[in-house]
Amino acid sequence: MSKRIEKWKVLNSRYLVKRPWLTARCDCVELPSGMQLPEYYVLEYPDWVNVIAVTRDGRFVFVEQYRHGLGEVSMELCAGVCESSDADSLESARRELLEETGYAGGTWERWMTISPNPGTHTNLSHCFVARDVELVSGQHLDATEDIAVHLLTADEVVGLLTSGRIRQALMAAPLWKYVATHHLL
Amino acid sequence: MSKRIEKWKVLNSRYLVKRPWLTARCDCVELPSGMQLPEYYVLEYPDWVNVIAVTRDGRFVFVEQYRHGLGEVSMELCAGVCESSDADSLESARRELLEETGYAGGTWERWMTISPNPGTHTNLSHCFVARDVELVSGQHLDATEDIAVHLLTADEVVGLLTSGRIRQALMAAPLWKYVATHHLL
Repeated sequence: MSKRIEKWKVLNSRYLVKRPWLTARCDCVELPSGMQLPEYYVLEYPDWVNVIAVTRDGRFVFVEQYRHGLGEVSMELCAGVCESSDADSLESARRELLEETGYAGGTWERWMTISPNPGTHTNLSHCFVARDVELVSGQHLDATEDIAVHLLTADEVVGLLTSGRIRQALMAAPLWKYVATHHLL
Repeated sequence: MSKRIEKWKVLNSRYLVKRPWLTARCDCVELPSGMQLPEYYVLEYPDWVNVIAVTRDGRFVFVEQYRHGLGEVSMELCAGVCESSDADSLESARRELLEETGYAGGTWERWMTISPNPGTHTNLSHCFVARDVELVSGQHLDATEDIAVHLLTADEVVGLLTSGRIRQALMAAPLWKYVATHHLL
């Protein structure tokens, strides 16, 4: 029952793809049993952030955008990538919220840190809860971003969750934690 | 506010990596604005499954294993890949639970279907809740699998969640949904 689980040893490593939006590494690894896996694939990404942002009048700030991996228009939390110019993940999350939605300010709390996939991804995703945010500007989108902002009631957020319309695991996890800890069900 | 979000057009597509455990595609896409992105990367995977399995005496069946992307030993739900030989995702989940833990039987419910990442991944992850599972055999592990089974109380599961030790987003989401809907907090 309490078998000790050990790390793998990396025997060698090479990059298959090294592009601005995809870095894929192939490791040759040795398992604790001594068995070797000649091709284990690892995807290297910077850390990510997202934010459950709630306005002073209790509306949740959501964004809607097309997601090409799944080929669907997706209802999501505001999210983005930690840039090396950001002081920390909190600053990344504040920056993304302002750029994508024009909302800022309020009281920010670190909510959870999770892994997109610990088997394949090197990075973590940091989720924040921001209370009492206010609209301070318009959106400042990249040329490639096409994002509609929606302000939802708590009931609407619970409805999206229970009907399975929040598909993105990195957002469903902090939102369900929010529902559980705020006893919204 | 209610801007219409549209799909992208794929102008052409080529595979960068096509290996048993990694398939990476590069699409040249045209956005609704007419702007073209010459390199948008998509990762193609088969669907995945995981299961919140609870024994007759209320213990949650967890697995502990090393995850090389993050470089950590990870406490997780039993999970795996939908094989083409499985009739459906329910059969995949039953097969993975039996192979990784030796537990089977009980009453199974479809719990949630989420996306690892709708921006980059083509696949979905299907989560089940299995109640009253029983130990029917030993583990049947692949040569590459090194998995310790743990039977946890509901309090221990809540403790892992609240202390942030359930890192994997695809598992944190259904587990927090379980906590919310079963009012475990």
